[in-house]
Amino acid sequence: MAICCQTPFKPTPISPSTALNTHTRLTISESQTFTCNLSQPSLTLTTEPEPIFTFVKSFAPATVANLGPGFDFLGCAVDGLGDYVTITVDPKVRPGQICISEIHGPKKLSKDPLWNCAGIAAISTMKMLGIRSVGLSLSLHKGLPLGSGLGSSAASAAAAAVAVNEIFGKKLGFDDLVNAGLESEAKVSGFHADNIAPAIMGGFVLIRSYEPLELMRLQFPNDKELFFVLVSPEFEAPTKKMRAALPAEIGMSHHVWNCSQAGALVASVLQGDVEGLGKALSSDKIVEPKRAPLIPGMESVKKAAIEAGAFGCTISGAGPTAVAVIDCEEKGKEIGIKMVEAFLKDGNLKASAMVRRLDRVGARLVSSMPI
Amino acid sequence: MAICCQTPFKPTPISPSTALNTHTRLTISESQTFTCNLSQPSLTLTTEPEPIFTFVKSFAPATVANLGPGFDFLGCAVDGLGDYVTITVDPKVRPGQICISEIHGPKKLSKDPLWNCAGIAAISTMKMLGIRSVGLSLSLHKGLPLGSGLGSSAASAAAAAVAVNEIFGKKLGFDDLVNAGLESEAKVSGFHADNIAPAIMGGFVLIRSYEPLELMRLQFPNDKELFFVLVSPEFEAPTKKMRAALPAEIGMSHHVWNCSQAGALVASVLQGDVEGLGKALSSDKIVEPKRAPLIPGMESVKKAAIEAGAFGCTISGAGPTAVAVIDCEEKGKEIGIKMVEAFLKDGNLKASAMVRRLDRVGARLVSSMPI
Repeated sequence: MAICCQTPFKPTPISPSTALNTHTRLTISESQTFTCNLSQPSLTLTTEPEPIFTFVKSFAPATVANLGPGFDFLGCAVDGLGDYVTITVDPKVRPGQICISEIHGPKKLSKDPLWNCAGIAAISTMKMLGIRSVGLSLSLHKGLPLGSGLGSSAASAAAAAVAVNEIFGKKLGFDDLVNAGLESEAKVSGFHADNIAPAIMGGFVLIRSYEPLELMRLQFPNDKELFFVLVSPEFEAPTKKMRAALPAEIGMSHHVWNCSQAGALVASVLQGDVEGLGKALSSDKIVEPKRAPLIPGMESVKKAAIEAGAFGCTISGAGPTAVAVIDCEEKGKEIGIKMVEAFLKDGNLKASAMVRRLDRVGARLVSSMPI
Repeated sequence: MAICCQTPFKPTPISPSTALNTHTRLTISESQTFTCNLSQPSLTLTTEPEPIFTFVKSFAPATVANLGPGFDFLGCAVDGLGDYVTITVDPKVRPGQICISEIHGPKKLSKDPLWNCAGIAAISTMKMLGIRSVGLSLSLHKGLPLGSGLGSSAASAAAAAVAVNEIFGKKLGFDDLVNAGLESEAKVSGFHADNIAPAIMGGFVLIRSYEPLELMRLQFPNDKELFFVLVSPEFEAPTKKMRAALPAEIGMSHHVWNCSQAGALVASVLQGDVEGLGKALSSDKIVEPKRAPLIPGMESVKKAAIEAGAFGCTISGAGPTAVAVIDCEEKGKEIGIKMVEAFLKDGNLKASAMVRRLDRVGARLVSSMPI
């Protein structure tokens, strides 16, 4: 059964010439800063855009958030691993509504657009665009497992937001798409943009503030290589449980330490210093020490990764995936084997390893059919 | 009366070929990372170096530490404002000892080298170099007021360490000189390197760790301009009192906020984004809110700076100097006037303003006479 949902909007008519509101700032530099007001889309159109494709298929990558001392404000995208969303102009769907027609992946995902990551982001994007005259159907192909710490919900939301935007001629910018995804994240895994922003924008993204939403893209140099060794054990580490493990209060010395490591992490990203990046990634004294003991074997896995030559290792997102960094794919595979062994030996958990490049593109159109 | 002090060392004979110990790492890149073991100098010479000058005069710049969310780990040097130290080979001083012959500046400074910032750093540097056969006299010319929040003690220590190193042929590197200065800072204003490191190295320096001491030089682009508006009120804000105002525990949301701003600050420095730098500088939610109320008028001064066009403003070091940033000297002067007015109006304090460039050089030789 496909459950449809109307976009609950009332667009404010603003002339296109003043479409960028006063809270919107776009600064293009080595790192780009995007600012927008969360309360309304940065672009509101006087006329409803028409679809330019009959269908589009989009892809959005997995993401690694938290990144040690980058907890809750820094994330990055991972190449070749993620979710697909297909959006089709569907005359059988009531205009202004969206239906989820099919989901390839975990059975427990809801087909009600209001309770599905992709659905929520799609509705939010339709609302921003002011879609009243066209009905859409959405098909979700999950490439990411749920609750793995690889930004599964964000990937679905990012792919959906980008697909809806593309089908109507790409009227919205990164900031609006991130906001659309944030609505979904807020319902599903908490109000945080450190997965959804890199899922949409690619590369490394620093969340500078939420009110207004301000994002800094941190450009990892194009001529440098960065590989993530992602090792996922067969273990459920729900985000909420992992959040509950966080300390409410932090001592000043640990605060200063983590701040300095966060600064070093940002500098290492911008300079393409994978060794420095790994070292910073490994240096969290606040969150990882509380969470790692909740994932059987994690401390040994980190040790094994470092001993095998990884520059650094930590928990990806809220876990249970462990992420190590290295600058060579072959070396990454060797590190992955050692990490899998450590999960089995010290955590009694089966695990699988992947070595993936940094994704520098973010959510994207992969196929389409013009009208 | 000149009080002399023997260098209390026993040098370890290590061959010059293995002089860089296992803890020493020198990575030259856009930012340079220096690592060394605090417990011993990175360079210990088998033979005592001989002086190559009869006297040297050095200069070390003022520094702005804390830098909002960069509290306790990030500092930068300020051009054209600092202390001078003259070191002379003095046959009247017992070999291996140092005397402070004169101090131009505040009367309360001790001439006992063990109780004087410059003296402590000079002794430490002599110790690292293994000086046993030459006596030195030191003259200190203070350009910086004490307790102003502009790294007065660090400037004296940096100038002294560099002068001693220069007179014996510059055998020591940045890391050792910072360690020498740290000995002084630890005695005088607390064990923190965020003044002494930029005073010696110039520019922005991030203190990544203390054990081992690891410093990251953050290169502000040479083609960009950065000016500091430094406004010092006639008010004493001792470091210890300001330290006592710090919260012992920090809530997670404030921790995450300050960490993200620290990351944004580092990114802005590396990209030469003065506006972003100022914004980050202004964004501290942890230290500045506790300290600013202890400096009469500080909150109004910050407001006045921003209203006058400064990109950001905070307390310099532990105060009472207020520091604002801007990319234009003329504009800086206008901002300074407004800040001085605000100190008078809302703090009932007389204040003076200066506009200074970022110092990119650090402590340096300014004159010398070869033997």
